[in-house]
Amino acid sequence: MQDSRNPELLHKCELLKKFSASLGVADTKMKNEALLLSAQAIDERREEILRANQIDVENARKEGMKESLVDRLALSHARIDDIIEGIKTVAGLKDPVWKSSQVWTLENGLVISKMTCPMGVIGIIYESRPNVTADAFALALKSGNGVLLRGSSSAIHSNTAIVSAIKEGLGKSRISPEVLQLLEDVSRETVEQMLKMNGYIDLIIPRGGRGLIRTVVENATVPTIETGVGNCHIFVDESGKLQEAVRIVENAKLQKPGACNACETVLVHEKAAKAFLPMLYEALKDKAELRGCPRTRAIIDVKPATEEDWQEEYLDYILAVKVVDDLEEAIGHIGVYGTKHSECIVTENYTHANRFLREVDAACVYVNASTRFTDGGMFGFGCEMGISTQKMHARGPMGLSELVTVKYTIQGEGQIR
Amino acid sequence: MQDSRNPELLHKCELLKKFSASLGVADTKMKNEALLLSAQAIDERREEILRANQIDVENARKEGMKESLVDRLALSHARIDDIIEGIKTVAGLKDPVWKSSQVWTLENGLVISKMTCPMGVIGIIYESRPNVTADAFALALKSGNGVLLRGSSSAIHSNTAIVSAIKEGLGKSRISPEVLQLLEDVSRETVEQMLKMNGYIDLIIPRGGRGLIRTVVENATVPTIETGVGNCHIFVDESGKLQEAVRIVENAKLQKPGACNACETVLVHEKAAKAFLPMLYEALKDKAELRGCPRTRAIIDVKPATEEDWQEEYLDYILAVKVVDDLEEAIGHIGVYGTKHSECIVTENYTHANRFLREVDAACVYVNASTRFTDGGMFGFGCEMGISTQKMHARGPMGLSELVTVKYTIQGEGQIR
Repeated sequence: MQDSRNPELLHKCELLKKFSASLGVADTKMKNEALLLSAQAIDERREEILRANQIDVENARKEGMKESLVDRLALSHARIDDIIEGIKTVAGLKDPVWKSSQVWTLENGLVISKMTCPMGVIGIIYESRPNVTADAFALALKSGNGVLLRGSSSAIHSNTAIVSAIKEGLGKSRISPEVLQLLEDVSRETVEQMLKMNGYIDLIIPRGGRGLIRTVVENATVPTIETGVGNCHIFVDESGKLQEAVRIVENAKLQKPGACNACETVLVHEKAAKAFLPMLYEALKDKAELRGCPRTRAIIDVKPATEEDWQEEYLDYILAVKVVDDLEEAIGHIGVYGTKHSECIVTENYTHANRFLREVDAACVYVNASTRFTDGGMFGFGCEMGISTQKMHARGPMGLSELVTVKYTIQGEGQIR
Repeated sequence: MQDSRNPELLHKCELLKKFSASLGVADTKMKNEALLLSAQAIDERREEILRANQIDVENARKEGMKESLVDRLALSHARIDDIIEGIKTVAGLKDPVWKSSQVWTLENGLVISKMTCPMGVIGIIYESRPNVTADAFALALKSGNGVLLRGSSSAIHSNTAIVSAIKEGLGKSRISPEVLQLLEDVSRETVEQMLKMNGYIDLIIPRGGRGLIRTVVENATVPTIETGVGNCHIFVDESGKLQEAVRIVENAKLQKPGACNACETVLVHEKAAKAFLPMLYEALKDKAELRGCPRTRAIIDVKPATEEDWQEEYLDYILAVKVVDDLEEAIGHIGVYGTKHSECIVTENYTHANRFLREVDAACVYVNASTRFTDGGMFGFGCEMGISTQKMHARGPMGLSELVTVKYTIQGEGQIR
């Protein structure tokens, strides 16, 4: 029976399966050397990368891409410096492979160790940002995994140039350039086949918007990690310090509205509403559009919020506001509309803080701090492969430790049952 | 738009979602009390359970079920004692919820804790063994999760009686009986809908044969954990102690051939073959059927092995035997035919032992011991929710620690970015 799968996909998966095995047992020194040589090759070939990126940017503008998206696609010398710095940072991080915090001996003398080890091959499906190409490669390599990249067609020239430079760098190292593969065929059919490459790909991480993530989750038979969608809330409790609450909301809404950890809805305890809402209105009125529930609009003059507003991840200078009766209603609202990303309570009530931390089902739960801290860099991981909003395997910011699996080694001297 | 999903499924999922939230924050004492009351109710209603089981057994025989399968379905006083003992054991295990081994403070004063917490709702799809009903309930409850059980139609009377007893026990506790739900509609359509109940079910674990597991992996959009299929190998290296190797193979093949951790293929280093194969033949010839490669058959008189034999999980008194050139060929064969369950090397060569442990990609990798030790009980977990053969989230025997997820709590005093 002939294999009906895309030959490019199949060939690259076979190369990855073959060459990732030796990467998996490579020592830290070999991996770091390969990372630094790749960074150097990107540096040396930056003019070529910038020219390729120029083609992508021109094509995107011709096709009428929004300028905010063109900005995510465009590279510059400064951005290439960041990419190089990122790879060097990963080289400096601790190797997550072949570590154990659990070793024990059974009564019969068997010694069992739960060891970390690479996944094997990781697939990344992402949208237009070409820096993800280098980031994902660096994190995968350091964690001992081969990586299959499927970027967007709009970034194909940039991605090809970056991958070509990295492969040149790997060619000078003791790690095979075949551990990195970029799919040239970015058609929908090929992505759908990629999602079903069980036996070749061990894990797929989609990095992008809600539509991309839904497609991956609905079609993949390879295990996946959902990332990114964040409908994040800040609940201002009756006892919360109101000036502090305003500063936290302002930061969580305005510092980077396009980020998944930005705040989208503020919930206000009815006993705090009269004092808090005018303060919030003053702080935000020239910087963001507020949309309020009827009880909010009885206090401040804002547009009405509809059911859609509670559901939406605006990623924009818009904030929904709802007055709630109590902590229970706030937790209930978050349970219905939240995306299990980042949720915050502003309170001085000890019991409410503890209840919120335990009862809210999300990757990151905050007391009295901005939701913008949900980030691998901020958390001190030194890097990030996205933010998981599911519960299996990894939750919250994913660093190197989230890109490995475990195996049990059992060492005996002839033991039988 | 009307919801076209099975109303029983939807209703039970809604109950689970609602009531598992309070189970998730219940303290250990409340959960243990609920487990012990459930065990007591099973004890008190054992006659009723046995009568219900009798109906299932009679129906199964009428429909011509194989006696080995009828044996897995049938209950007895002794087996009910085991079920009760199992629940009590889980009550005695450490609570896996709200534990942290990672707490750190950022430079800005934010305190981050990575805490374990319940998944929410776990779905279990299993075949005829009614003891899984009680086991799965106990493990789910102790780990703070609601559980939706979908057993086989052949065990429906037994499962209904066990669930009814457990719910009576829960009714006397401070945990709601609604945290346990058994699907009465066991049709294929309803299972397929269950596999797509994202938003209600957080994790699905199939427990059964290859066909069931494949159906679940191919159709589920809810995250799943593959369990159980074990095509396990023992590689007898040139330097292996041959008497020890015979005892290990004998144990791994014969002690319980129907178990997923039983050995299915023995690989023998060509330099050990002449001495080892006749010893193996003597030990097994009256107890199992051997099937060998051409080089094996040049030494001992056994049936020929075909390509299918390398692939098959016999679960029977049959053993495939293959002579290999060296360690590389053994690891290569396991890479192609293994199911990433349990793999063993018998060797006295230090470097070979280390290479096998690192290079073989499986949940459990052994040196000089029987593969039959891959088991939650043997490992000292006190229980088991199946053996994961995938790499995401859990790998190898799954105990209580594998049934929880994590959340980050971030406690601040007004920090912003």
